[in-house]
Amino acid sequence: MAAASPPAEAAVEEESLLSQPLLQQHEEQHHTLRRSASNTTSQLAIVGSNLCAIESLDYEIMENALFKQDWRNNRKIQIFQYIFMKWTFCFLIGLLVSLVGFFNNLAVENIAGLKFVVTSDMMLARRFVAAFAIFSSSNFALTLFASLITAFIAPECAGSGIPEVKAYLNGVDAPAIFSLRTLLVKIIGSISAVSSSLNVGKAGPMVHTGACIAAILGQGGSKKYGLTWKWLRFFKNDRDRRDLVTCGSAAGIAAAFRAPVGGVLFALEEMASWWRSALLWRAFFTAAIVAIVLRALIDVCLSGKCGLFGKGGLIMYDVTSADIPYHLWDVPPVILLGVVGGILGSLYNSLLEKVLRIYNLINEKGTFFKIILACCISICTSCLLFGLPWIASCRPCPLDPSEPCPTIGRSGNYKKFQCAPGHYNDLASLFFNTNDDAIKNLFSKNTDAEFQHSSMLIFFVTCFFLSIFSYGIVAPTGLFVPVIVTGASYGRLVGMLVGSRSTLNHGLFAVLGSASLLGGSMRMTVSLCVIILELTNNLLLLPLIMLVLLISKTVADAFNGNIYDLIMRSKGFPYLEAHAEPYMRQLTVGDVVTGPLQLFQGIEKVANIVHVLKTTGHNGFPVVDVPPFSEAPVLMILQRRVWEMETGLKI
Amino acid sequence: MAAASPPAEAAVEEESLLSQPLLQQHEEQHHTLRRSASNTTSQLAIVGSNLCAIESLDYEIMENALFKQDWRNNRKIQIFQYIFMKWTFCFLIGLLVSLVGFFNNLAVENIAGLKFVVTSDMMLARRFVAAFAIFSSSNFALTLFASLITAFIAPECAGSGIPEVKAYLNGVDAPAIFSLRTLLVKIIGSISAVSSSLNVGKAGPMVHTGACIAAILGQGGSKKYGLTWKWLRFFKNDRDRRDLVTCGSAAGIAAAFRAPVGGVLFALEEMASWWRSALLWRAFFTAAIVAIVLRALIDVCLSGKCGLFGKGGLIMYDVTSADIPYHLWDVPPVILLGVVGGILGSLYNSLLEKVLRIYNLINEKGTFFKIILACCISICTSCLLFGLPWIASCRPCPLDPSEPCPTIGRSGNYKKFQCAPGHYNDLASLFFNTNDDAIKNLFSKNTDAEFQHSSMLIFFVTCFFLSIFSYGIVAPTGLFVPVIVTGASYGRLVGMLVGSRSTLNHGLFAVLGSASLLGGSMRMTVSLCVIILELTNNLLLLPLIMLVLLISKTVADAFNGNIYDLIMRSKGFPYLEAHAEPYMRQLTVGDVVTGPLQLFQGIEKVANIVHVLKTTGHNGFPVVDVPPFSEAPVLMILQRRVWEMETGLKI
Repeated sequence: MAAASPPAEAAVEEESLLSQPLLQQHEEQHHTLRRSASNTTSQLAIVGSNLCAIESLDYEIMENALFKQDWRNNRKIQIFQYIFMKWTFCFLIGLLVSLVGFFNNLAVENIAGLKFVVTSDMMLARRFVAAFAIFSSSNFALTLFASLITAFIAPECAGSGIPEVKAYLNGVDAPAIFSLRTLLVKIIGSISAVSSSLNVGKAGPMVHTGACIAAILGQGGSKKYGLTWKWLRFFKNDRDRRDLVTCGSAAGIAAAFRAPVGGVLFALEEMASWWRSALLWRAFFTAAIVAIVLRALIDVCLSGKCGLFGKGGLIMYDVTSADIPYHLWDVPPVILLGVVGGILGSLYNSLLEKVLRIYNLINEKGTFFKIILACCISICTSCLLFGLPWIASCRPCPLDPSEPCPTIGRSGNYKKFQCAPGHYNDLASLFFNTNDDAIKNLFSKNTDAEFQHSSMLIFFVTCFFLSIFSYGIVAPTGLFVPVIVTGASYGRLVGMLVGSRSTLNHGLFAVLGSASLLGGSMRMTVSLCVIILELTNNLLLLPLIMLVLLISKTVADAFNGNIYDLIMRSKGFPYLEAHAEPYMRQLTVGDVVTGPLQLFQGIEKVANIVHVLKTTGHNGFPVVDVPPFSEAPVLMILQRRVWEMETGLKI
Repeated sequence: MAAASPPAEAAVEEESLLSQPLLQQHEEQHHTLRRSASNTTSQLAIVGSNLCAIESLDYEIMENALFKQDWRNNRKIQIFQYIFMKWTFCFLIGLLVSLVGFFNNLAVENIAGLKFVVTSDMMLARRFVAAFAIFSSSNFALTLFASLITAFIAPECAGSGIPEVKAYLNGVDAPAIFSLRTLLVKIIGSISAVSSSLNVGKAGPMVHTGACIAAILGQGGSKKYGLTWKWLRFFKNDRDRRDLVTCGSAAGIAAAFRAPVGGVLFALEEMASWWRSALLWRAFFTAAIVAIVLRALIDVCLSGKCGLFGKGGLIMYDVTSADIPYHLWDVPPVILLGVVGGILGSLYNSLLEKVLRIYNLINEKGTFFKIILACCISICTSCLLFGLPWIASCRPCPLDPSEPCPTIGRSGNYKKFQCAPGHYNDLASLFFNTNDDAIKNLFSKNTDAEFQHSSMLIFFVTCFFLSIFSYGIVAPTGLFVPVIVTGASYGRLVGMLVGSRSTLNHGLFAVLGSASLLGGSMRMTVSLCVIILELTNNLLLLPLIMLVLLISKTVADAFNGNIYDLIMRSKGFPYLEAHAEPYMRQLTVGDVVTGPLQLFQGIEKVANIVHVLKTTGHNGFPVVDVPPFSEAPVLMILQRRVWEMETGLKI
């Protein structure tokens, strides 16, 4: 802190402090005595909760004699070094995250693609059993690999990682979520999990990956690898590291969905508890780097050098159209879509929470059971994906298909599957595809006649439950893509039911469906809006998307909370809410600590303080005395840091 | 306050307080004594500044005995009433602002359109003098009207209004900026100013209009018109009114550019000094209403019921294209564009500031001079718009024109002007058009051969200076559109110079040019990005736009500040910056007040306090004593309010 604070102060000088830790901010309207108490409340609450090894981070710059002195004797050069490093880090984050994101896409497309090509060839040769054997075994192998590395090397990689990062940005430091090991396992695990046809996404893991990269860059060097360059030391404080992590998570979404602006807004709306305008500017910079690098890399692939990744453009699910004529009578079905979407979204959240609770019981039994669970899910998934299409009746290809029909191999709207030549299996076109291709297919226009009601219903129900049951397994699993695909099928189903009474084609209904389910489960507004725009590249739909998001979020909020908050609670992170609950007004520190309450008088013996510091691990203590001494706890923190830094001996 | 505070508290309960007044926030890290002092600093600084009648607003909810009591005895029903009214107001704001915005567009298109039709007919009959007479006189009349109503009815309508609103949201209450009179004059004045072919925009005035509507709705009824409904009284506090005004300004941009998401982000990034996530959600709601209503209204116009407004779609300057193949070698020119754009932007800002200073000298001479000034500008503008096209040589129409060529009348890329049949005047297609049509023309693709270098250069230089000289006149004038059109011509010029060495067509260069100039003068990032996207509906360009914005903002920041801040300073608003300047750390209240410093002891005689309250107009006083009494100044404010409210007699 001593070394870091002058630049940190410089940051305060050059940046505008737009936000504050939230409970504390609320409390700061009381006077200092109450305030110092409340700070400690949060920390003691954390210590008191039955979670081991979670500490709270110090995001405040507390002004006091020690700090002011630091600030006074800092030099211009230090400030320059600090600012230079800050932007360099943002650039590096953008660069690395976009490279990882691109590699991620490339790997998934090629691994999953290869799998589908091989199986489809078998299907063509009508060797169905062999096809299933290969399909399911490859899925099994991939899932097993993902769960093995997760379970044995880095258990904290399980799940999406967004809740962990969100908690970190709120000031809750869970152990090892940002280690190098975590990073590698997260990337590789996510690739194999997604390619194993599990109904899981890659966006969440990308956010965690981005945050990881940022945190590793910002950890102020590493003694272990001998990286002890002075310039790095500036970042050896929670505050600057938090800012980098925020940029990292923005970059994550930007890279996962090729949605730079959406990424920034996601970080702002969903992830960050602390925000300042200067951070917006830096996050924008990072996201811009991601956008530019991705565009350049995709430019390379357009010339077909990327194997089955082929022509992955900058827009993932393009639904552009010159003009979308929708009219007043299209609004009622859209409103309905929003309402039901909101209900489904909240249902999704509560079911997911319950399933996670059950999974926790299983996972507690030990690593072996975790892996068994993952394998079971994989087998079930394979059976469903391969089995369900047989229910659907083969349909003759349309006379003037918008695409080749029927198709063999990995992509294509009209899958041949088991059908006779000239026929296609509409359910296979959804199930027997990567999630991305399924979404593209659902969003596609001029395919209103492609699907049967029954198929769409089956697909929707299957996706809904598969995604719920797939999330909790011990592997890196995202929620965004599953929700999008489920919502798309739901929206398309509604579109089919509304039929020709609406001027919107079913593809657009699918887009609105995804919007409604996303709004119902993630509860974001502007960021989702922009992300959907950047995914589908259709601005004319904006009014309807906003309408749907409004309705679905409002409806869903009536039932339960944002899915990430639910997961965070079930993980037991002591997330500090934006405002103190009314009942908290009556609480004192004594009420919330579990252990014996360590407190200080305004005037306290040094021996006493040292003793307490030695015997406890806390960084904050209530001072029950008159305010003139209320800076005492802060001083203690600083001195502890300084002491440790200078003497190197841990008190 | 007494009546308002329980719901205000309810708001705190239901919403997350994400932001804080900035200097105060910075100060709150000192202890209370310092803090109360700093609060007062800001207020006394305002009183001390040589501006009459500017007061600071109370945005803090200060907790104290009185307030807590209020909060305890509030009833569920009140909270419900409050929340219900809050959302109703947001809905009304969205509805009204979108109606005004639509009416605004309609009026301008029809008035200006009519003017151009008549003049063009004259031109066709080769009665050039008569044409000029009609053109210039109608412009003159419109400008005169605008400046007359502004100067005599509501002088505070002059200019864009964004600085005023920004200052208000920062806590600076300039007199009469939100009166009903202001609202009407702003709307009518803006329409006539824009239709008078002055190089001024309508976005700024729309923001002010939106803020006005919000503030009037949120002023808690009006005794004058007998609107004293109890439910309205809840909003009789600065805090809730501020939130409504924020939503209003978001709605303003949303309506002006049909860019709902951009509007929300503009309010977040540029306007608001205080922000909380709940406000994002409400601003989004307001913007969504705007988007939906506008879409519906435009639906009506598509059937051609809106006269010359014709088919004004939801996207203003559509540059969609299926695929934009740009490659690595397109990046250097784009970077150059950004750098020069940044320099031009900062030059624009500083020139504008200087011109405003000169104008202030003229305007101080009295209303008459103000109006003379406006008239001169109008005459100059007319002469330039009508005169300069004669410089350009007539060019033969292209063999396969993308549009009819040559055209008579208001719109069209290939204006006939004075040319012989089969020929067009490229300069006239820019000058002899509304700004919107000029922008459409500059952004249009497949028109790379349309313009001569000389014409583009002339147009750029003329726009650059016209917009600088037009802003300061006594009429509602916006800056957005002028900057966009200037930037577009600049970008297109660069595109022409780069020529075939780039795969980007000149239209896209024009878009990037606008982006660079906007970035260089307004210094926003995400919001500009989204606004440009929503204006042009071309997501594939996003990486380049982000790149340009990054560069131009960075370059421009090296020279001077954001244009609105410059204008605010020149208007003398005591805007509280995000952070305290280093030297402020040494200041005491005594240093900043001009008059005799009124201060209280911790323990003070009531008589004394009442006396001071009677003799001064301030709401805050430093308490130089031990903190236990530091709530005193707050109590005073409340009691004053309560007293006034209950006894009705002004102490």
